[in-house]
Amino acid sequence: MAHIELNNDLPGIRGLMFYSPETEAPLNALAEQLLRDDNNSLSRGERELIATYVSYLNDCFFCQNVHGAVAGYYLGCNIDEIDAIKANFSAADLSPKIKALLAIAGSVQKGGKHVTTDQIEAARAEGADDKEIHDTVLIAAAFCMFNRYVDGLGTWAPQDRQIYINRAPERAEVGYISSIFKKV
Amino acid sequence: MAHIELNNDLPGIRGLMFYSPETEAPLNALAEQLLRDDNNSLSRGERELIATYVSYLNDCFFCQNVHGAVAGYYLGCNIDEIDAIKANFSAADLSPKIKALLAIAGSVQKGGKHVTTDQIEAARAEGADDKEIHDTVLIAAAFCMFNRYVDGLGTWAPQDRQIYINRAPERAEVGYISSIFKKV
Repeated sequence: MAHIELNNDLPGIRGLMFYSPETEAPLNALAEQLLRDDNNSLSRGERELIATYVSYLNDCFFCQNVHGAVAGYYLGCNIDEIDAIKANFSAADLSPKIKALLAIAGSVQKGGKHVTTDQIEAARAEGADDKEIHDTVLIAAAFCMFNRYVDGLGTWAPQDRQIYINRAPERAEVGYISSIFKKV
Repeated sequence: MAHIELNNDLPGIRGLMFYSPETEAPLNALAEQLLRDDNNSLSRGERELIATYVSYLNDCFFCQNVHGAVAGYYLGCNIDEIDAIKANFSAADLSPKIKALLAIAGSVQKGGKHVTTDQIEAARAEGADDKEIHDTVLIAAAFCMFNRYVDGLGTWAPQDRQIYINRAPERAEVGYISSIFKKV
């Protein structure tokens, strides 16, 4: 049970967004821009993977399963492959560029000052440009917010991971704007 | 120097917002709603204080000075009093309710799961309602994002703290929407 009375039975951040539509609007607009905007050389799958990895590091069950399922949908990975990436992305079948960006995201999760010049240079050496580095840092930072919002208010989440997988194609289709009106 | 070429010399998050207006819009809309919306039983000063305290815990020089100066402006505190609150809010001349909410914010800074039922009950016992608890958690979570965005991309910040104090009245007047067009 959440720490506050949400007056709805929606899980995770969706219950919070229904409770507080005034903050739902900018939060979902931010997620939509970062994770789905087409003017981006990182694929939607890569951006969802950054979100998933940070949510995993923050131990947020709801977010890592929502976004892990969507990442898997875009990237053609099953749940075991997504889990393997979260546990050790270095060993996964991913591009050197996204691995370098995931390393930066991991540092952002610890705190902004953990990002090193060496990490930035390593990402550049693998072909990452300024916008890709910017977006990686902001996606990672944003999920440090979303994860804390979800867990800091003690929201519930379905424990059956298949639910998130089943929901991913619709989530990929409709995106994050007005998502509170959709079921998990 | 920032980790990426921002094509402007604005400090802190303002340089990032100028670089990325697509994300500036939802980020500033979120700050405006959380910190300034009038439909809130927490004063603007109290909300700025939560932002300041979390930014202090995250060691973000820019954010803790921008918001510390604005908090001081609203609350009628000088910089030494704000510094004393950051270092030990329990000993400060603040209401028991805001102290209980600052304790929750401090837990959110560590991670969402650090918030305890005891902390929530303590805040309720001092008169905090659901919206105040919700907003405290989301303000704290949001500044875990803003702080990481600012420091994760290695932005610069004026080191003279008087600059932030001088700027606070205008910031309090104009708010956070379209703030990129204003000077520090």
